[in-house]
Amino acid sequence: MKRATLDTETANFALERAIERPWFRNFVTALIIFNAVILGVLTYRESLPHSLVFWLETIDQAVTWVFAVEIAIKLLAYRLVFFKGGWNWFDFIVVGISLIPGAGAFSVLRALRVLRVLRLLHIVPVMRRITEALLKALPGMGAIVAVLALVTYVAAVMATNMYGNTETEEVQQLFGDLPSSALSLFQVMTMDGWRFEVVQKVVDDGHPMAWLFFLIFIFVASFAILNLFIALVVDTLAAEQKAVLQEGIEELEEDIEELEEELEEEMEEAGDARAEMLTLLKSLQKDVAELKAVMRLPPAE
Amino acid sequence: MKRATLDTETANFALERAIERPWFRNFVTALIIFNAVILGVLTYRESLPHSLVFWLETIDQAVTWVFAVEIAIKLLAYRLVFFKGGWNWFDFIVVGISLIPGAGAFSVLRALRVLRVLRLLHIVPVMRRITEALLKALPGMGAIVAVLALVTYVAAVMATNMYGNTETEEVQQLFGDLPSSALSLFQVMTMDGWRFEVVQKVVDDGHPMAWLFFLIFIFVASFAILNLFIALVVDTLAAEQKAVLQEGIEELEEDIEELEEELEEEMEEAGDARAEMLTLLKSLQKDVAELKAVMRLPPAE
Amino acid sequence: MKRATLDTETANFALERAIERPWFRNFVTALIIFNAVILGVLTYRESLPHSLVFWLETIDQAVTWVFAVEIAIKLLAYRLVFFKGGWNWFDFIVVGISLIPGAGAFSVLRALRVLRVLRLLHIVPVMRRITEALLKALPGMGAIVAVLALVTYVAAVMATNMYGNTETEEVQQLFGDLPSSALSLFQVMTMDGWRFEVVQKVVDDGHPMAWLFFLIFIFVASFAILNLFIALVVDTLAAEQKAVLQEGIEELEEDIEELEEELEEEMEEAGDARAEMLTLLKSLQKDVAELKAVMRLPPAE
Amino acid sequence: MKRATLDTETANFALERAIERPWFRNFVTALIIFNAVILGVLTYRESLPHSLVFWLETIDQAVTWVFAVEIAIKLLAYRLVFFKGGWNWFDFIVVGISLIPGAGAFSVLRALRVLRVLRLLHIVPVMRRITEALLKALPGMGAIVAVLALVTYVAAVMATNMYGNTETEEVQQLFGDLPSSALSLFQVMTMDGWRFEVVQKVVDDGHPMAWLFFLIFIFVASFAILNLFIALVVDTLAAEQKAVLQEGIEELEEDIEELEEELEEEMEEAGDARAEMLTLLKSLQKDVAELKAVMRLPPAE
Repeated sequence: MKRATLDTETANFALERAIERPWFRNFVTALIIFNAVILGVLTYRESLPHSLVFWLETIDQAVTWVFAVEIAIKLLAYRLVFFKGGWNWFDFIVVGISLIPGAGAFSVLRALRVLRVLRLLHIVPVMRRITEALLKALPGMGAIVAVLALVTYVAAVMATNMYGNTETEEVQQLFGDLPSSALSLFQVMTMDGWRFEVVQKVVDDGHPMAWLFFLIFIFVASFAILNLFIALVVDTLAAEQKAVLQEGIEELEEDIEELEEELEEEMEEAGDARAEMLTLLKSLQKDVAELKAVMRLPPAE
Repeated sequence: MKRATLDTETANFALERAIERPWFRNFVTALIIFNAVILGVLTYRESLPHSLVFWLETIDQAVTWVFAVEIAIKLLAYRLVFFKGGWNWFDFIVVGISLIPGAGAFSVLRALRVLRVLRLLHIVPVMRRITEALLKALPGMGAIVAVLALVTYVAAVMATNMYGNTETEEVQQLFGDLPSSALSLFQVMTMDGWRFEVVQKVVDDGHPMAWLFFLIFIFVASFAILNLFIALVVDTLAAEQKAVLQEGIEELEEDIEELEEELEEEMEEAGDARAEMLTLLKSLQKDVAELKAVMRLPPAE
Repeated sequence: MKRATLDTETANFALERAIERPWFRNFVTALIIFNAVILGVLTYRESLPHSLVFWLETIDQAVTWVFAVEIAIKLLAYRLVFFKGGWNWFDFIVVGISLIPGAGAFSVLRALRVLRVLRLLHIVPVMRRITEALLKALPGMGAIVAVLALVTYVAAVMATNMYGNTETEEVQQLFGDLPSSALSLFQVMTMDGWRFEVVQKVVDDGHPMAWLFFLIFIFVASFAILNLFIALVVDTLAAEQKAVLQEGIEELEEDIEELEEELEEEMEEAGDARAEMLTLLKSLQKDVAELKAVMRLPPAE
Repeated sequence: MKRATLDTETANFALERAIERPWFRNFVTALIIFNAVILGVLTYRESLPHSLVFWLETIDQAVTWVFAVEIAIKLLAYRLVFFKGGWNWFDFIVVGISLIPGAGAFSVLRALRVLRVLRLLHIVPVMRRITEALLKALPGMGAIVAVLALVTYVAAVMATNMYGNTETEEVQQLFGDLPSSALSLFQVMTMDGWRFEVVQKVVDDGHPMAWLFFLIFIFVASFAILNLFIALVVDTLAAEQKAVLQEGIEELEEDIEELEEELEEEMEEAGDARAEMLTLLKSLQKDVAELKAVMRLPPAE
């Protein structure tokens, strides 16, 4: 990706600086909010005059193109580095979907165009902090979610085998095939209408002991979810706590070190004084010995 | 707001003192509880004799006027300072609503008169502590609630576009317009009847893949709420913890400092002693040197 | 309550010792469990042979009398001190209810006889620990439960005034009078069927803005419950934490104190040595001065 | 269990080494996942061609036999030690069930064959860590679950006595016998449809005060569950916390000890110096005394 001429390089640099200016981000933020409102108003398309709907859709298209230009500018400015940021990929895909020409034909693709508004999640700094905290908490949940998914899969296969082969339409809707069973078990897990919408219907369908199966499932699933939750709380707290404690310990260690240094200094001073005293004493002893020798006295023992 | 004469000033001061006496607060508390009971009894107005209802309403009006006078007194006593307290605004509005003459005509305004009873929340000290703790926890939730609201808005626009345009009355009630969709998604978020009251109806209306949309929404919303909750727990705990730890650290720092001071004192004493000893030693050396000189001995090396 | 004779006193003491022996408690525990099983079997009285029901009821009566005797023994042993224990009151009332002769006539009183089984909660030590921990957590919840109750009362009065005066039977069942409104709001608070069993019915009854009232109530109530929960977690944790930290701090303080003592000892020793040295030096100086005087030398400056 | 010949011993050792190699575990993991998929596909047996179902079942049988051989190898390698591991028992039972010849006849036994897939829970290391953490949290919940079970049992006996003896079919389904009452109370505890599916039906059946019974039960049960949860959070956190704090305390204790040692060393040095000085001073004093004696001076006081 060697840059062609110095001119483009200067242009790129100017672009980069422009993109990172606050007014640019504020402008994009305002445009997304404006777009969100238009998309909200457009949900009333059936009861609005045709011409207004036409105008609103035109504005929406225009805004989409502004977003496309914005992303193109970023691509120009950052080149391949652009694709290293996860949020850039998000923007690229979400705006890209809106530009697919046939988008108007498929209701799903058209519906996905609203996802553009979620760009606010990483453009508004306060929201970005929250969103990134949420995303960072995800991997820690991986293993326990996998355990829950495995347990649900096994229970869904069991439920389909045990209760799915029936004439009762309601039970067939609940446990007729694997995805339905999984959904029904998820419903039981959320404890929404588990008794009369699920368990009782299976019991009435000739499985008087079915409540046992579901109670075991409820206990296992609730217990796993409870522990998932506890693990998240404990992890977050323990990290925070360790930081706070570390700070406190460091403060104390500094105090102790300071005390140690002071002590060492004093000790050195005392040592020097002692050395001086000893030298003096020894020279004194020698002098006195000489005096004694002159006096013809015997030397001290 | 310069005070007109000294007389009013003295009167104001007397008022201020009266308002802050315990008997005044106890009287207001008792009056609110009495009023709450009357308002409760008045909900049975259809089955009570007309004359009793009339008397109860008259008493209620009287109590309202007592509250109005109470607030007027506070206004007189504190003047513009009155409007600096959030709770004063609350009292002012809540009592004000009750005094709007046409209030009897509009059921909503009449219903709002009961809000007067909520004055207990800040007049009873135990409740005030709780209420203010709750209010203080609110700002910390702002950002994550904004994220949840944005996600719900985007999902509501998508759901209205995808499922709202239908002949089925039940689905139209759920996702026919934007506010209905938002309410339905909030219902799904609270996991109340999400399967058979919402998801299954949309699936039966010709959207076999709708469960995917709702499952994703449930996961995202639950995860965000879970983290909102964890953030609150962790913040409250971390603050409490920091305080407890800080106390402990300070205790230890004091101990270390005490040790340091003691050490310094001892060291100073030791230093003084050393200095004295050195002076003595040096004078001794000099004396001995003189003695040696008298003896005609060579000086010590 | 002066004891009559020495004989009774001795008897009382013997009783007290018997009551506190493990075999006595084990016997009572076994009897309660046996009684619980009988009471469980008696719920099938309609499908059991008459003679068996008669025998079971006779055994149940006998067990009740054994419990009565047990309490009488305790009363004899502990006298008025018996009524100082909350659990003794519980036993006294619960066994007393079972002995009311007309109890068989009133289904409620008869139903309350089963409460006897709850005596296990304080007789089995493991359960007693849990139960007392639960009871100890109650007062901490008082204030926030009062706030919730007040908010629910005010909302119930409002709802009764706004929605209760209607022809629709379903809405009248929900909000027709104050207790019904309170129960309906509690239902909304538990988020059980809040949308279609409560809110939608009120909306359909000609109150299109009712969802706003209920959403506000849901938010306020959930937020208060959330904080009630957080307060409990934080309080329990902070107490535990303080204990752990205090222990750590004390350990360190002991270390520092030990260091201090050691230092003091050493310093004292050093001080003694210094004092001795100074004394020696001064006497030396005096001696040397005398020597100099003999030699007719001028004294040292 | 003395080993027969040296040959088998060598063979056993070779087996043991083979079993613990990563490729062996990866092979078993892959096989279980493959088996899980087949069992999932087999839930569609009604809509699949007969020959495919036959092949899938044959493969499933083959995989089961591979698992049986795997367990047989482990039994050979570890002998009776095999039965000391809880997970080995789990494997043994779960694979054993699949091999019961008549299993195809009983839908329950056939359904239980899917449990084989749960072997992943202890074979995949990440899942094993989670599963064992969950199992370790179980005993801590024992006491409070026992309290909840006791309270539910007592309430179920009461509810059956009070509400079970009725003509209304719906109420009989809810509280007709003890297990139904327990299930209904568990439903109330999960707050799923408690108002209109349970409480209202009992109220309408001629028990206008029934809501009081259920409200008390909801409060007691929710409070117990809340405390169960808090106990789990607090226990997990306190353990984590104690470890972190202990680490910090030890760090500081080491610092203080280091300081102490340094001090001791210095003090010893100072003590030695002082001893030397004293010796010198005393010998000096003696010398000077002798000098004075020679000079006929009186000795120093």
